[in-house]
Amino acid sequence: MLPPEIRSILEEMRAERIRGASYLAKRGAEVYIKLAELLSGDGLREALKDMREEIPAVNRTMASLYNLARFIPITDNPDLVISKAEEFIRLSEEAKREIGNIGSELIDENEVIITHSFSSAVLEIFKAAKRKGKRFKVILTESAPDYEGLALAGELEALEIPFEVITDAQIGIFVKKATLAFVGADNVTRDGAVVNKAGTYLLALACHDNGVPFYVAAESFKLHPELNSEEVEIVERPYARQGYRVRNYLFDITPWKYVRGIVTELGILVPPKEI
Amino acid sequence: MLPPEIRSILEEMRAERIRGASYLAKRGAEVYIKLAELLSGDGLREALKDMREEIPAVNRTMASLYNLARFIPITDNPDLVISKAEEFIRLSEEAKREIGNIGSELIDENEVIITHSFSSAVLEIFKAAKRKGKRFKVILTESAPDYEGLALAGELEALEIPFEVITDAQIGIFVKKATLAFVGADNVTRDGAVVNKAGTYLLALACHDNGVPFYVAAESFKLHPELNSEEVEIVERPYARQGYRVRNYLFDITPWKYVRGIVTELGILVPPKEI
Repeated sequence: MLPPEIRSILEEMRAERIRGASYLAKRGAEVYIKLAELLSGDGLREALKDMREEIPAVNRTMASLYNLARFIPITDNPDLVISKAEEFIRLSEEAKREIGNIGSELIDENEVIITHSFSSAVLEIFKAAKRKGKRFKVILTESAPDYEGLALAGELEALEIPFEVITDAQIGIFVKKATLAFVGADNVTRDGAVVNKAGTYLLALACHDNGVPFYVAAESFKLHPELNSEEVEIVERPYARQGYRVRNYLFDITPWKYVRGIVTELGILVPPKEI
Repeated sequence: MLPPEIRSILEEMRAERIRGASYLAKRGAEVYIKLAELLSGDGLREALKDMREEIPAVNRTMASLYNLARFIPITDNPDLVISKAEEFIRLSEEAKREIGNIGSELIDENEVIITHSFSSAVLEIFKAAKRKGKRFKVILTESAPDYEGLALAGELEALEIPFEVITDAQIGIFVKKATLAFVGADNVTRDGAVVNKAGTYLLALACHDNGVPFYVAAESFKLHPELNSEEVEIVERPYARQGYRVRNYLFDITPWKYVRGIVTELGILVPPKEI
C-alpha cells in the first residue's frame, strides 16, 4: 500500500504533458526519496515492491522509469533507498553532461543542425558546443500542439545560439538547409527503434531522403532491455481545435535503420545497417 | 496601365493565405471579366498585354495563373475576353467533376484515405465516391498554422463521411493505418514534381516507407509547361507564435518518384518510375 501523498505524485506524473523521459525519471527518483522519508521497515519494503509495478506503469513508453524501478533495491532501510535514488539522479546528470561532451564533437564549424521538439540531452550538446567556441545554427520545430520547441527557442536565445523556428509541416523544406540532425529519445527499444515526440520519424525519413546524418541523444537508462518496438504503447492525450477532436499520440517510432547513431554517456551506439 | 480596381483585386489575390491554385485561377478569370467590363479597344489590348505579366506574378508557384494568362487572347474585343474567361471557369469546374469521377474509382470498399490540408479536387473525389455508395474513412491533418484541414473536416461532416483529424506531426503514425493517400496540387512542374501545401512531401515519404499508394489530384491547368522544380519559388507568409518569428513557407516539393499517379480530368498521369 502506497501512502496517499505518493499516489498523488504518481498521478501528477501520469498527467505530465510536456516533459519527457529525463524529467519523469528524476521525478520518479524524488518519489523514492519521499517514500523513504515516510516509511521504514516492513512498510517500506512492501511499498518498494509496489513501486516496482507502479513506477513503470506511470508511462510504459519510458524506459527511464523501468530502469529506475530496477535501480532501487527492495529493502527496509530508508537510508539505502535515499542514497540509491540520489545516486540515480547524480548519474543522470553526469550522463547528460557527458552526452553534451560527446555529441558536441559531432558538430563541425558552421553546422546547421535541425531538431524536433525539446530534448534536454540535445540542449546539453548545444551548450557544450557553444562552450567549445563552435559556431553553428539550429533549426527547430515549434512542435504542435504543446509548442515545446518554443521553450528550446528561449534557451537558445539565452545562450546566444542563432536559431530559426519552423512549423512541423516544414521539416521537409528545412532539412534541405540542414547538415546534421539531433533529437532526443524517450525510449530506445530492444530492437533499436527510437521512441520520441511525434514527428521524429518524419524528420528521420526526410534526413534519409536528403543525406543528412540523423543522430539521437539518449542517456543509457533510456535503453529498454525488454521492450520490442511492436510492443510500445503510445500515450494519447486529449486535444481539440475549433470544436473538432484532434488525435494526439505523443510519440512515434523511428526504425533503427534511419538512425546514424545514438549518443549515450558511454559513447555512440551505431546500428547494424540494414539499408 | 491597369485600372486601380483591377490592381487592388490583384493585391488581394497576392495576399490570399488559405485558398490555393483552383481558387486563384477562378478569381483570376473573374479579373479578366471585370477588365473587359471596364475597358475596350486599344486600352483593353494594352491592359491584356500587362495581364500576361501581372496574372502569373500574383503567385509564380501557381501554374493555373500561368495557364490562365495564356488562355485569354490579347484582343480589343471585350466580349471575346468575357467568353474565354467564362469558358476557363466552366472547363475548370468540369475538370474538377471529372477528377472526382476518375479518382473515386481508385477507392475500394472500406478504404482508409489519408490526406493533407484542403484540396477542392480531393474533396470532389470524396463526394463522387460517396455518391457511388462507397464506404471509406478519411484521416486528415489539421494543417497548421492556418488549419485548412478543419475546413475539410466541416465538409466531410456535412457529407456524413467518417473522418479523424490529426496533427501534422502524426502523419508518420497514421499513415500506418491508411491504405491510400490523396492530396491536391498547386502546381506540377515540367519534371513532374508536385508543389503542394508544406507537409505533402513528408506524407509522400511516409507513404513510400509504408507501401501506401500516394496519388495527387490536379486539373491539367496545374501542369506547368516551362517551370522546373529547382526554379519553383515558394511563397512565405509572416507568422509568429509566443513572440517568436516562425518560418512559414506555404508549399513544399514532392519528387515525381514518390507519386503513384496524378489524377487529371483527362486520366491518370503515371510517372516514369525511378525507384
